[in-house]
Amino acid sequence: MPGPHRTKDIPKNISSFYSALTQELASTFQSKQEQQPLMANPDPEVSGGGEQKAAQGENAEAGKSAVPTYQQKAKARLLLLLSYISGDMEVFAEWMKKQFFLLQLLDWVLRGAAQVMFVNNPLSGLVIFAGLILQNRWWALNGFVGTLFATISALILQQSRGAIAAGLYGYNGILVGLLMAVFSNAGDWYWWLLLPNIVMSMTCPIVSSALASINSRWDLPVFTLPFNILVCLHMVATGHYNHHFPQVLIQPRTELANITWAEVNVAKLFTAVPVGIGQVYGCDNPWTGGIFMVALFISSPITCAHATIGSAVGMVSGLALAAPFEAIYFGLWGYNCVLACIAIGGMFYALTWQVHLLAITCAFFCAYLGSAIANVMSTFGLPACTWPFCLSALTFLLFTTETNTIFKLPLANVAYPERNLRFFWKLRKKEKLEREEKERDEEKWRAKEQELLGNDKEVLRMERMDGKEKGDGMEGKQINKMMIREEEMMEVALGAVSSMAENV
Amino acid sequence: MPGPHRTKDIPKNISSFYSALTQELASTFQSKQEQQPLMANPDPEVSGGGEQKAAQGENAEAGKSAVPTYQQKAKARLLLLLSYISGDMEVFAEWMKKQFFLLQLLDWVLRGAAQVMFVNNPLSGLVIFAGLILQNRWWALNGFVGTLFATISALILQQSRGAIAAGLYGYNGILVGLLMAVFSNAGDWYWWLLLPNIVMSMTCPIVSSALASINSRWDLPVFTLPFNILVCLHMVATGHYNHHFPQVLIQPRTELANITWAEVNVAKLFTAVPVGIGQVYGCDNPWTGGIFMVALFISSPITCAHATIGSAVGMVSGLALAAPFEAIYFGLWGYNCVLACIAIGGMFYALTWQVHLLAITCAFFCAYLGSAIANVMSTFGLPACTWPFCLSALTFLLFTTETNTIFKLPLANVAYPERNLRFFWKLRKKEKLEREEKERDEEKWRAKEQELLGNDKEVLRMERMDGKEKGDGMEGKQINKMMIREEEMMEVALGAVSSMAENV
Amino acid sequence: MPGPHRTKDIPKNISSFYSALTQELASTFQSKQEQQPLMANPDPEVSGGGEQKAAQGENAEAGKSAVPTYQQKAKARLLLLLSYISGDMEVFAEWMKKQFFLLQLLDWVLRGAAQVMFVNNPLSGLVIFAGLILQNRWWALNGFVGTLFATISALILQQSRGAIAAGLYGYNGILVGLLMAVFSNAGDWYWWLLLPNIVMSMTCPIVSSALASINSRWDLPVFTLPFNILVCLHMVATGHYNHHFPQVLIQPRTELANITWAEVNVAKLFTAVPVGIGQVYGCDNPWTGGIFMVALFISSPITCAHATIGSAVGMVSGLALAAPFEAIYFGLWGYNCVLACIAIGGMFYALTWQVHLLAITCAFFCAYLGSAIANVMSTFGLPACTWPFCLSALTFLLFTTETNTIFKLPLANVAYPERNLRFFWKLRKKEKLEREEKERDEEKWRAKEQELLGNDKEVLRMERMDGKEKGDGMEGKQINKMMIREEEMMEVALGAVSSMAENV
Repeated sequence: MPGPHRTKDIPKNISSFYSALTQELASTFQSKQEQQPLMANPDPEVSGGGEQKAAQGENAEAGKSAVPTYQQKAKARLLLLLSYISGDMEVFAEWMKKQFFLLQLLDWVLRGAAQVMFVNNPLSGLVIFAGLILQNRWWALNGFVGTLFATISALILQQSRGAIAAGLYGYNGILVGLLMAVFSNAGDWYWWLLLPNIVMSMTCPIVSSALASINSRWDLPVFTLPFNILVCLHMVATGHYNHHFPQVLIQPRTELANITWAEVNVAKLFTAVPVGIGQVYGCDNPWTGGIFMVALFISSPITCAHATIGSAVGMVSGLALAAPFEAIYFGLWGYNCVLACIAIGGMFYALTWQVHLLAITCAFFCAYLGSAIANVMSTFGLPACTWPFCLSALTFLLFTTETNTIFKLPLANVAYPERNLRFFWKLRKKEKLEREEKERDEEKWRAKEQELLGNDKEVLRMERMDGKEKGDGMEGKQINKMMIREEEMMEVALGAVSSMAENV
Repeated sequence: MPGPHRTKDIPKNISSFYSALTQELASTFQSKQEQQPLMANPDPEVSGGGEQKAAQGENAEAGKSAVPTYQQKAKARLLLLLSYISGDMEVFAEWMKKQFFLLQLLDWVLRGAAQVMFVNNPLSGLVIFAGLILQNRWWALNGFVGTLFATISALILQQSRGAIAAGLYGYNGILVGLLMAVFSNAGDWYWWLLLPNIVMSMTCPIVSSALASINSRWDLPVFTLPFNILVCLHMVATGHYNHHFPQVLIQPRTELANITWAEVNVAKLFTAVPVGIGQVYGCDNPWTGGIFMVALFISSPITCAHATIGSAVGMVSGLALAAPFEAIYFGLWGYNCVLACIAIGGMFYALTWQVHLLAITCAFFCAYLGSAIANVMSTFGLPACTWPFCLSALTFLLFTTETNTIFKLPLANVAYPERNLRFFWKLRKKEKLEREEKERDEEKWRAKEQELLGNDKEVLRMERMDGKEKGDGMEGKQINKMMIREEEMMEVALGAVSSMAENV
Repeated sequence: MPGPHRTKDIPKNISSFYSALTQELASTFQSKQEQQPLMANPDPEVSGGGEQKAAQGENAEAGKSAVPTYQQKAKARLLLLLSYISGDMEVFAEWMKKQFFLLQLLDWVLRGAAQVMFVNNPLSGLVIFAGLILQNRWWALNGFVGTLFATISALILQQSRGAIAAGLYGYNGILVGLLMAVFSNAGDWYWWLLLPNIVMSMTCPIVSSALASINSRWDLPVFTLPFNILVCLHMVATGHYNHHFPQVLIQPRTELANITWAEVNVAKLFTAVPVGIGQVYGCDNPWTGGIFMVALFISSPITCAHATIGSAVGMVSGLALAAPFEAIYFGLWGYNCVLACIAIGGMFYALTWQVHLLAITCAFFCAYLGSAIANVMSTFGLPACTWPFCLSALTFLLFTTETNTIFKLPLANVAYPERNLRFFWKLRKKEKLEREEKERDEEKWRAKEQELLGNDKEVLRMERMDGKEKGDGMEGKQINKMMIREEEMMEVALGAVSSMAENV
């Protein structure tokens, strides 16, 4: 679900079969390889789950000086294979670009299905559809139709091709399709439902684009806001008392829930964790939730871990706020926390332990907010949808602090937690180098200025001061530098003239 | 209802009686006239409805080479007359500036009345007031009081005089006045109602200005948001159970509406189209709606066409969502779509056929949203007002796409669909010319830079690179250019010196 | 409650005991002192309430030429004492910086308690706590816990130290703590309540920071929005029907209130004014309200006056809108108007009589809005909190006008009305001087440019024009100036060459 596309990026660490890619890779990691030219594994990726995704391919096999053992080779091959199916499967995406259009569309739809959980991976999408079919075929069909038409609509409306290919226009579609089916009171296989489903899915890209115009001012993603808006729109526009598209009846609580702590079912509380993950797609089958966890693990173990933590936090919050046990077992306290915990825990922030704590805090806040929003929305006969997630995640992304251990990634660089981490580390290194260089640079300029101050070009210097005051930041500095250079040029010119005069 | 004023613009195409204007006009259309110096009709306006508003006046009559026939003369006079009463009547506005203040105020009030439909035309305003009087005199009085006091308040609060003169501070006032009378439960001619009416109207400019501060960040107009906020404020602050200002009772639907398709009255469905237009001002009389259509046609046929389309779309949506027939006949499904369709269809976007489709889509979305908002607001005993229109139009104006056939006009250039189109075409032409020129320019600079690269001024070049990296965009380029020029100057200086040395 | 910290400012007007401060002060008022070196009172502060806060201390006593009389000395000492305890007590804050951490924390907590009313003064905070204890000890304890933990949380989350020291992270905490206790249905001394109290208070800085990210785009403060959000969150998440944290039952009005004008109790109406001020902290005891007024007066008489006016306006509005008398007596119509009137009347705008009228208008608008929001929120079983104040004050701060008598202070310069006024006056003087200087400067440049136009450097001039068009504002001008200077340099260089040539 993250921001703009990242298809322009060079698929990294794969070099065996794709000779075209080798060169790009070579240039990317050149500096590193220059330092460690003989290592079999020049750029091992460090990931949260201990999984190593780097691959060596031809470079390693070409092994100019060291001959790799059989074990090393096997490991290398395994890692290579992993790199193909984990993360955001960029090699596959690159390969897809040359394929038949319908095949591409399928790739986008599958990525869209997975993007609900911020996963940009068609394999995860396939696994998720499997889980949906296990839950309910009619729902799965509606979800597929929703994703498909949302993607098609984005194509018609000429949205960014990169974003479409990353599934960023599909995830709202699948949720719209699924949840319209889930909350319909007309029963399964009521084929007319496909009509508003298609209309609403096709409206998704418009609402997404409009919201992005607003949110981009704060470099924020739109999350599932378009889904929330459109499903609520459909449900409240038709309502429970409607001839064509009746909705399930949702009413506010008007009496004390019957809660006896002796009756709590610990086993059910534990299954509430996968059920909570399943409820992200409106599914209450714990097996479906388990399948979704597998889908997450394929792409990013960090995401999977935070999803589990989030669901557990939601369950605990439900108990703390004296929620009816049925709601907790049903996963209604979990799904928002799942999404919030994933979003904050490594997706939009670079994962440090402070960010990890922040993600857990956000999950608690989200649970609280979830209860509040559910109560408010029930007044209008509406479910809470994923409003609590959106609002809590946006709040925690808008939050600013003076510490530099909580680093919010620029939206354009958001990928998946493991790669975000690498981006963060590289940036830190670069920043450090730049800071050192700048210090040296500044010293140099200061020295030069000092020198110039010795001269008696009073007028010029005063004007420069003036420029310094007015031009703020970078421009001011640059203009300042230029002024200094001008003076140098003048000196050169005058020097030439005077030397010539001497010659004469 | 569009954004800032446009009174500074030069009234175009009129040159007969206003000799002072002739010169300005001459300079404006100079390039065009140079190409076609002998044509009788140098700048015919192309409008959607086939109406030609251009005027020739003295230029044509002075006819230096071609002697116009009687027919041509008659046509010219007709067009001239049309140009006086259609569009935004700028000649009249210009003439008004020199009149008595109360007369000016009347002009502003009339324009304010018409600006509800985005029409900046006092004649349309007059026709609209006639329609209102036909509907209900008490309502018309309240509407007039609202417009008047909103305009006066804007004057006191020292808002932009241009915006006031365009009626942009009046249209919320007329709606506040009218709808407070419509929703009052105290019956007609309850004179105390004028008190909150005046208070609320006078608050309009404050709320308008505040909202404009927010919306201007995205170059969006405030639409009728101030009216929506203030009428809802008044209604919910007092409520149905109030001693002083009771409101009509609005309650949420709690059972299935009784809809029998056999009972549908096709004639009434057709009258629902003008009634829907009438409901923009809270009027359910189809004749009043018809009069409003005339008012729209006077100023802009495109606006009138989109209003009709919008109302029809709303009616169809009502049928599709199984709304009670009475609500459809009463025009409640139409008025928001009317406004949304006008706003998108040529008012804030330049009209192309893609924009026309977008306007229809927006009308459908607006109808859906209207149903949703009406249901939500009824929980608080509130009507939907024009919230659905505001929200849907804002969404569709925030929407961005990569196609260049959907062009959103800068808010400061919004006038009426016909003139917007002309602005769009001119801009396109200008852009094309600029692009070509820039290409040539860039080539030139590239060539010069290439040349300079041959020299061995290593230090200077490196610094220039540095400047290129830091200064982004325009500044960077300019500074770059300046650096290059500096070098040229140095060459000149050194050349002079060396030539002199040779002379010596 | 105003924006960023102001701890970097130099405590002014105090020079007697703090020798370290003397020097800073000396440099600040140097220019002024140079002009009036012998005056006993070099920088008398002008305040709205006629109170003179300036201090003379050693400077006065050192009295180089004029020997002050005993009376003058006494007055000086009194003013000095006043300057220590009024305003924002900056000398005290400065002194606190060197103290034990827990003492500092206490200072911050006390300032936080007073910041609810925009007062940054620990003494006022102490008085307010006294008022709270008089009202209800359990509430006072909850308020203290809330402030304390909100401040601690801000420290943990590494928020701006200056803002924390000004109590800007505490005021939402005290309101959260107090109102959660006030609206709890579990009775006083229900110790479990401290748990959600601490959790919600600690969330305050996160929500504050997130909202500040949004509001800072319009240079707006966050007011009590975090408190509103979090208390509503807690109340609606638990609700009336909750086992752990039940809330008081709030229901919408469903019948006509029984209002007999003969029964109105004028004495009670008058006590409604201090009660309204007390209701800012949820207190209905008129004595508590009176104590709060004293707390306001200590820091800023202007604030105190506007608080009283606001409360009176609220009471009158309640009568005008036919509110039940009990609600008016209970101060429910007053507290929002109190805050709105303080915020507009001199706190965020510089106080002129136009701003004074605006503040009263805002108070009326706030009362209206208060009634509306109370009715809407009651649907969800929620109180109005201070939403009406926040929304009305934000609206009136977003409002723009072309008059220069309504001057909105930059958020970073907001202090207390008296100092804001001084800032405003200084700025006006500075602006006037700058304008005059600029005019002179521009004339000079124009003359120079005119001169240059005489030369035949066609190419350069055209490029300069080009630069003028592209570079907008300051950059454009600077670059322009530089270009002109370049030419001058060229002239110098060429002049040197030619003069040399002549010499040869």
